[in-house]
Amino acid sequence: MSFRDNLRKVTPYVPGEQPRGSVIKLNTNECPYPPSPKVAEALRNMDPERLRLYPEVGIETLTEALSAYYGVKKEQIFAGVGSDDVLSMCFLAFFEGKKPVLFPDVTYSFYDVWAEVYRIPYRTVPLDPDFRIRPEDYLAENGGIVIANPNAPTGRAEELSVLQEIIEKNQDSVVIIDEAYVDFGGETALPLIDRYPNLAVVRTMSKSRAMAGMRIGYAFASRELMEVLQAVKYSVNSYTMNTPSILAGAAAIKDESYFREITEKIIKTRERSRDVLCGLGFSCGRSSTNFLFAKPPEGIGAARVFEALKERRIYVRHFKKPERIADYLRITVGTEEEMDALFAALREILPALREEA
Amino acid sequence: MSFRDNLRKVTPYVPGEQPRGSVIKLNTNECPYPPSPKVAEALRNMDPERLRLYPEVGIETLTEALSAYYGVKKEQIFAGVGSDDVLSMCFLAFFEGKKPVLFPDVTYSFYDVWAEVYRIPYRTVPLDPDFRIRPEDYLAENGGIVIANPNAPTGRAEELSVLQEIIEKNQDSVVIIDEAYVDFGGETALPLIDRYPNLAVVRTMSKSRAMAGMRIGYAFASRELMEVLQAVKYSVNSYTMNTPSILAGAAAIKDESYFREITEKIIKTRERSRDVLCGLGFSCGRSSTNFLFAKPPEGIGAARVFEALKERRIYVRHFKKPERIADYLRITVGTEEEMDALFAALREILPALREEA
Repeated sequence: MSFRDNLRKVTPYVPGEQPRGSVIKLNTNECPYPPSPKVAEALRNMDPERLRLYPEVGIETLTEALSAYYGVKKEQIFAGVGSDDVLSMCFLAFFEGKKPVLFPDVTYSFYDVWAEVYRIPYRTVPLDPDFRIRPEDYLAENGGIVIANPNAPTGRAEELSVLQEIIEKNQDSVVIIDEAYVDFGGETALPLIDRYPNLAVVRTMSKSRAMAGMRIGYAFASRELMEVLQAVKYSVNSYTMNTPSILAGAAAIKDESYFREITEKIIKTRERSRDVLCGLGFSCGRSSTNFLFAKPPEGIGAARVFEALKERRIYVRHFKKPERIADYLRITVGTEEEMDALFAALREILPALREEA
Repeated sequence: MSFRDNLRKVTPYVPGEQPRGSVIKLNTNECPYPPSPKVAEALRNMDPERLRLYPEVGIETLTEALSAYYGVKKEQIFAGVGSDDVLSMCFLAFFEGKKPVLFPDVTYSFYDVWAEVYRIPYRTVPLDPDFRIRPEDYLAENGGIVIANPNAPTGRAEELSVLQEIIEKNQDSVVIIDEAYVDFGGETALPLIDRYPNLAVVRTMSKSRAMAGMRIGYAFASRELMEVLQAVKYSVNSYTMNTPSILAGAAAIKDESYFREITEKIIKTRERSRDVLCGLGFSCGRSSTNFLFAKPPEGIGAARVFEALKERRIYVRHFKKPERIADYLRITVGTEEEMDALFAALREILPALREEA
């Protein structure tokens, strides 16, 4: 017997690299534009003396702003330290059963990590060859369902009717829809929360609100699910969001015109970038997110393109697992200039790699 | 079968009230003084554009500052969203066993909540009648030990030799020493981390660094424990601390003279306040923290004093459980002026309550 026997062994999630210095960073789906100027203003106006006191225990300033913006009752909103915190709490709160939780085989690679750390049984459900969800695959007995829509790293969005069918036919399980990327396309399941007490919808301010550095996520659900989620949160950490993040989050959500402006710019750049990548011989499906999921031309492995770009200080994301996506690159949509630099690099890299092949 | 069967039922920790407006707030052990001016400066100098990027994944700016200040290797430091986040992660990471984790019956009331939420068996060990730890009580087989030193809400500090005996005799368990209040008195167990691979020492910036609103906690331990703790943290949320908290934490830790100034002021006010309370007939042991644990004069119940103070918009803390502390009030040390207002109120309240009794 040793204290070592009582330590929790887990294989953690590996986030994308965070290189510093002069690089083109298209690897962690950050926003290429700064947060709303209202965020800077809110932080500037915050009296530093206020930091001596605990933050709002109910995170009211932020949840009230979210309530007004989305037209959802405050009691149906939960906020946390990024959508990772919110999702982690949802896993802990909602998946206490013995039956496996279901999620796609190709999706956000944190889901299986949360399941492991909280000892939740799970089973992955293969997407179809075109990376789509088949709702009939989600009819098996289960202890919960998690679906990212739009999905990552594929970028594909499912129609709301597909999700509704899954929620409808699984009213004995909690269904979590992770809408981290919904502001870049895709239909939200938010209107369904009052119809299905088993539905939770999760969002983040890391992408479309340009605040990955602030760690703000939130969720919507029935009052019944919210009560459980809040009780679990208060059993882990009573004060998760600090005062600057509460103020910054509220300021960001109130500046709708800036939000529209940057998401539209990103969507425009994404569509142009997809055309260019297709022209360079990539296969690249439609994206409803702030990234593209692209397969280099036949015979040129994604891993080699990834490495060659990295040598040029351009960072994209390459997943070795699961195997069926190892041929793809996930490329965050940057500014027009960043994408042009990427394309220029690819125009140099691809012929060289083709010759080697 | 319903989704309700899969929900986690827990009884959460109840934090102290957070009244707003014009009140005297002596109920949640916040610092009566603002954070170091260097904190305000660091936040002012932060480029808001930086918030579009994820925070430092390794929290380097903060852990390097802590490393330099405490003379501990960076690899032996863990930082999180308040010491509650750090302690919660420690419970999850270190207490995977089947045997009960031990902690005192009178201590920080979050320990049993974490044990419940993570399904960790535990057993509370009675403090002696004077609220002291008897090291011989910690010789039973156990799956881990948690001791707050100085303890809350009693304010008592144990000598390092007492803790060392417990750590020494429990090398098959992880021992966590929660030093939230150590900067106000008491000996730190920090020098022992290189000697005992089973020891973790946890700190917070909420009290002595005057930043409850920023949510910054940290821990020291052997590399071996740190690796497990980091793996668990990366299995829950890769980016817990946001960019402002990393910068503010580093700035605070570098301003040692300000830290000395405010902790010395608080200690001075505490000692004077203790004398005044004794003069008013309270029994009030020595405190090594930023609060006093005081029992109103015989025949005047703590609950009634608590309510009478609240009517005068003076908030202190009263715990109904465990029963043996229901006769006490926990009074945070405020400014000299706040304490004078408290004493003036008590001088009015006590005779009135005595008449009623």
